[in-house]
Amino acid sequence: MASKFFSERNLKFLLYEVFDVPSLTQYEYFKEYDGKMFDMVLKAAVELAEGLIWPNLQEMDRNLPELVGDQIKVHSSVRQFMEQSGEGGWIGGGLPFEWGGQQLPQMITQACTFIFAAANFSSSAYIGLTSGAAHLILSFGKEEMKKTYLPKMLSGKWQGTMALTEPEAGSSLSDIVTMAEPTDDGYYKIKGQKIFISAGDHDAVENVVHLMLAKIKGAPAGVRGISLFVVPKKRIDEKGQLVFNDVVTSGIFHKLGYRGCPIAQLSLGDNDDCRGYLVGEPHKGLPYMFQMMNEARIEVGVGAVAIATAAFYASLDYSKKRLQGRRLSTKDPTLPQVPIIEHPDVKRMLLFQRSTMEGALSLLVQCSKYADLAHVLTGEEKEKDELLLDLLTPVAKSYPAEMGVLSISQGLQCLGGSGYCDDYPLEQYYRDARIHPIHEGTTGIHGLDLLGRKVIMSNGRAYKLYLEEVQGTIREAEKFEELESYRQKLKQSLEMVQKVTGHLMDVQKKGIPELFLADATLYLEFFGIVCVAWQWLVQATVVVKALRSTTGEAEANFYNGKFFAFRYFFEYELPKIEGLAKRLMNSDGLTVEIMPDFFSD
Amino acid sequence: MASKFFSERNLKFLLYEVFDVPSLTQYEYFKEYDGKMFDMVLKAAVELAEGLIWPNLQEMDRNLPELVGDQIKVHSSVRQFMEQSGEGGWIGGGLPFEWGGQQLPQMITQACTFIFAAANFSSSAYIGLTSGAAHLILSFGKEEMKKTYLPKMLSGKWQGTMALTEPEAGSSLSDIVTMAEPTDDGYYKIKGQKIFISAGDHDAVENVVHLMLAKIKGAPAGVRGISLFVVPKKRIDEKGQLVFNDVVTSGIFHKLGYRGCPIAQLSLGDNDDCRGYLVGEPHKGLPYMFQMMNEARIEVGVGAVAIATAAFYASLDYSKKRLQGRRLSTKDPTLPQVPIIEHPDVKRMLLFQRSTMEGALSLLVQCSKYADLAHVLTGEEKEKDELLLDLLTPVAKSYPAEMGVLSISQGLQCLGGSGYCDDYPLEQYYRDARIHPIHEGTTGIHGLDLLGRKVIMSNGRAYKLYLEEVQGTIREAEKFEELESYRQKLKQSLEMVQKVTGHLMDVQKKGIPELFLADATLYLEFFGIVCVAWQWLVQATVVVKALRSTTGEAEANFYNGKFFAFRYFFEYELPKIEGLAKRLMNSDGLTVEIMPDFFSD
Repeated sequence: MASKFFSERNLKFLLYEVFDVPSLTQYEYFKEYDGKMFDMVLKAAVELAEGLIWPNLQEMDRNLPELVGDQIKVHSSVRQFMEQSGEGGWIGGGLPFEWGGQQLPQMITQACTFIFAAANFSSSAYIGLTSGAAHLILSFGKEEMKKTYLPKMLSGKWQGTMALTEPEAGSSLSDIVTMAEPTDDGYYKIKGQKIFISAGDHDAVENVVHLMLAKIKGAPAGVRGISLFVVPKKRIDEKGQLVFNDVVTSGIFHKLGYRGCPIAQLSLGDNDDCRGYLVGEPHKGLPYMFQMMNEARIEVGVGAVAIATAAFYASLDYSKKRLQGRRLSTKDPTLPQVPIIEHPDVKRMLLFQRSTMEGALSLLVQCSKYADLAHVLTGEEKEKDELLLDLLTPVAKSYPAEMGVLSISQGLQCLGGSGYCDDYPLEQYYRDARIHPIHEGTTGIHGLDLLGRKVIMSNGRAYKLYLEEVQGTIREAEKFEELESYRQKLKQSLEMVQKVTGHLMDVQKKGIPELFLADATLYLEFFGIVCVAWQWLVQATVVVKALRSTTGEAEANFYNGKFFAFRYFFEYELPKIEGLAKRLMNSDGLTVEIMPDFFSD
Repeated sequence: MASKFFSERNLKFLLYEVFDVPSLTQYEYFKEYDGKMFDMVLKAAVELAEGLIWPNLQEMDRNLPELVGDQIKVHSSVRQFMEQSGEGGWIGGGLPFEWGGQQLPQMITQACTFIFAAANFSSSAYIGLTSGAAHLILSFGKEEMKKTYLPKMLSGKWQGTMALTEPEAGSSLSDIVTMAEPTDDGYYKIKGQKIFISAGDHDAVENVVHLMLAKIKGAPAGVRGISLFVVPKKRIDEKGQLVFNDVVTSGIFHKLGYRGCPIAQLSLGDNDDCRGYLVGEPHKGLPYMFQMMNEARIEVGVGAVAIATAAFYASLDYSKKRLQGRRLSTKDPTLPQVPIIEHPDVKRMLLFQRSTMEGALSLLVQCSKYADLAHVLTGEEKEKDELLLDLLTPVAKSYPAEMGVLSISQGLQCLGGSGYCDDYPLEQYYRDARIHPIHEGTTGIHGLDLLGRKVIMSNGRAYKLYLEEVQGTIREAEKFEELESYRQKLKQSLEMVQKVTGHLMDVQKKGIPELFLADATLYLEFFGIVCVAWQWLVQATVVVKALRSTTGEAEANFYNGKFFAFRYFFEYELPKIEGLAKRLMNSDGLTVEIMPDFFSD
């Protein structure tokens, strides 16, 4: 085990120095808080993470959840963590006081999620899902439903899930076939199969509450016929007892990683006795679910950065201790070996990890700030923050997910052969993180979302607001001559974004959506790199100011390290947009044209 | 399981249509063969792969080798495969007839290695290591030694290994401390520890023969004091019996993947009774070992392409069968879902895999051809082929290793959630392949090798020969107007290689090796992309000719598919050099300058 799994210093740098989370306490909704109280919340999260879930990281990976009979058994620490999360208020961190929540800003709740996920991603998933499901009931459920489910969920006694995927409907949710038949008693009879349901069943809770998509009999085809239901594993009978609700765990999947949290296959209504309770209006389930999905997407981004951050610190730890080779300029074999962190190529791998992950974390805090402001502001200001969050959600999910995998791979590489062996945690992180480009919408789906929906929505309004945000940062950086060349680079990069986007808009006008969207995944990658460069310039303006007045060695090292990570991003990562732009400007339809038969031989 | 793990059609395309392996039979050394006989060899390899090792792929991954007492137990098929490989002549495929070998060209033996590794990489490693170790004894061992070891090794009764790495000496071989003390009886007493020894011990053979690096007492420090020994697990006593040679398996490592083949920790001479037999001259061990290492590096490249090829066919299979979503241009939800291979983004992921892996395989066959020609030619022609092979070895190892990991990741992505679960083989391939950027020299080491040694050796002669080779291909492509724009692109890319290399040579002249080599890993990546583009143009000239005369549908599909993969490489992969060149032209010393303390916080 490495000595640390995240940097408290960096997290506080982002929350306080860059994004000024205490400024939110000026608004009525957050007025009970101040900066010190936020500190205490973060401190408590660290204690819970260090005390309970971090020590179980490897054990939970090696002792897999098992389906015994029709019940999945999980590691004993899961029950403890659910209970302590309930008691500590972590599950309802973002929910309002009146429903037993903590009414914390998302910037703080996501920072806690980050801490938990860095310590043990699988553990963090149990409470993240419960929290999201509870929020969905709160937003769209009837009073009665809220009273029934929220106290149990927020106390960690009942697990919440998102139950969307079916054997024949993953990316294409419009094709779900789980049926809901209305009854005269107010509930619906549910029948169907769900697969890949994270924390979909386990023995660390009394009950599991599925937020489930299904189609009401006779509903229209496609996404306009999808409704949202609460389908509990056990329902409450007339006597107030929990009884079997005909939800059967019919399978468990064996996964590459993320093994501490089971994903289940569920059979619903095999005995014609599965009751589901409609949330909100019929046929509006998908828009409702999108609230939970969008939150979950930000959380996937956070989880991805978190695992990669833990991997970074494990590889940093190793690189400082491992002696191997000598400086290239002094190859005398009689000299002692040096720590590998002395080698430029190892420093490059460490900087790659740090610059991609700290940049991505900054983007995620930025998104949480938009969410918080959208919560407390009104009118045009609120709309602006909502649009920016909407636009950036696919980026904030996918950049960390994709780059997290590469970042961890470089971390593993720092350890050489030891990185490939389970004496060190890198190989586990490498497996755990690979889920992120897949769940909550694959990267391909997010490419389509960004280019095919978000960039063009409201006549490109969100996109224009985004350009203005970045331009604002570029203007702010003008004040610092140390940033001049980087400011210019971001300016040129943003012009490249506009040029490429303009080209693609012209293609869109030709009316062939497949041609327009053929390279949407690459557009997402391209767009994401510039986003993260923007976030690094945002950070750099703070760093430059701090460096002018910092005196202590530790602080100076932190800010100097930050400045190198910033430079690294601009000098090594940002140039990747050149090749991407070249490709994106060439809408030759190559992948549209190639016939499936041409893959045969 | 997918229905196939490699493309026989593509392998034959490369061997016969592109690189004309039968042309080698004009030389004395290969005169016993003709094209038909090569075909029979390949056919026999496919039968062995399909019949024995492919069916055990998953089982060997799930039932790990175990250290029981001081003996590692492996899957029962390993003994069968060693025996059948011995009987079939696979272990000595490339060795001369007089020593019981098959005297086959490397193009053919590597093609067989490719088939075996695509079927089951772990299985293939056992015979590959034995083959390389046997070749080393043949090249540098005394007659007596050859007679003792070669028949046993070539028959698959004894395992061969490379025993280099020690706990404190991995990348820095000059720091090995395993000691060899001369005795009056001709042998040396060996004392030390070796780690990460692939197939370093197992129960599928009677004996294990370690080709081991050690230092003779009093030897000079560094690489000039390293000698090569044969250290058998069991030695032959006066009665001709195999007896304990004080080689103890003290540990086994649990790995991310490649689990069918154990890697062992060995203790040598704990009882002061481990005998080693010097190979060749004292202190010349490292240059000898480089023969095996260079062969092994090509084999790592082959192994990486092989796993990625199997992953490609598994993802292709899934993409043809899995129905999900509709064409973007016809989103009517009442229409049936289409196979995902209809989606441009899935075709992009498939083309990415195909273009990187078929391009890399072409480069590997090219390297084998250089090796074969170097074997049969003399004088300047021989030297030319040797230099080209030398220059390209780090590329032929690292490009497939690095891109193989990414390629398999895209294959896994095609399957979505199923790719993350062990019902499909992608997650295993993803784990198996991650060893390749590490073993036989990490990618960082190969970057240093390419830029710091190979490009500049003999006054840049190998590098100049390489430029001429690529220029020759560009001239050849002039004949085909279909290739005009691609020819131009390769020409410009080659000019970029010259510009970047020229810049780096100027930096070298400043005499600060750390600055010169800081981005050597990126130079390797940059150089590798252009190499593979070159190989695609080599292939494309054949494809264009074939398309003009092909009539059958299957053949037309094959060549059309090839042409799309070629175009994909030029349109999507080659542009990546733009960003890399931009970075490489900027020798700002960022990774040299950053202080290790700046990573602390």
